[in-house]
Amino acid sequence: MAERRHTEIESAALAVVHDFVAAWNSNDMSRVLALMDEDVFYHNIPVAPLVGRRAVSDYLGSKGGFDWINWQLLNIAVDGHKVLTERVDDFSIGGVAVSLPIMGTFEVHDGKIKAWRDYFDMDGYRRQLAQPKQ
Amino acid sequence: MAERRHTEIESAALAVVHDFVAAWNSNDMSRVLALMDEDVFYHNIPVAPLVGRRAVSDYLGSKGGFDWINWQLLNIAVDGHKVLTERVDDFSIGGVAVSLPIMGTFEVHDGKIKAWRDYFDMDGYRRQLAQPKQ
Repeated sequence: MAERRHTEIESAALAVVHDFVAAWNSNDMSRVLALMDEDVFYHNIPVAPLVGRRAVSDYLGSKGGFDWINWQLLNIAVDGHKVLTERVDDFSIGGVAVSLPIMGTFEVHDGKIKAWRDYFDMDGYRRQLAQPKQ
Repeated sequence: MAERRHTEIESAALAVVHDFVAAWNSNDMSRVLALMDEDVFYHNIPVAPLVGRRAVSDYLGSKGGFDWINWQLLNIAVDGHKVLTERVDDFSIGGVAVSLPIMGTFEVHDGKIKAWRDYFDMDGYRRQLAQPKQ
């Protein structure tokens, strides 16, 4: 069996997404934002997309911060500049813990995330948020 | 830049998923089922998982058939036996056309899909189904 070999572009794209997951898991929003392109397109599919790092920063700021974050990266695969992920995003916000099954695509160019699209069930998320605080 | 090379396992897994998408787009449910392992695990994430080709067959039968199907494969990437896809699944069921942004992971072994997990926003899907027939 031939050994699989990534192109340089693919290895770089994978590295950026791994860094991005690590930044989230460190709850380091400065690092999260720094890994995004200034003109990033961020689409949390059930809601309207955000364009630009400032819009993402404002959005994250409006959430009031996470108590803790633990994204579990179940699967990751790359094709050129595109990195596809399957994850369980565990986090706590406002004292409520959530476990969100999710998939996301990241388009990486020049070491930055230019596009990020996440797919998940919004209603399942909202039902968890409505649980009593722990 | 080094050319990217898939392993034999990866090339075979990609081929099965491409065949699977083609089977859907031909509205050929026999072919869809034939590409699944007898013990397939199928999880449409917002709803309970199905186990086994017969359960999937019963489920598909219960939907009463699709008028037409057109899955658009936006992105596909492979890592070993795992194939990750980003799609827009356009289809019509009971005279109602739906366009569903979705991501899915397929685990392929021995030419068959052993696991399939799709992630999408159920509420967005239901709102489309509630539209008047065309």
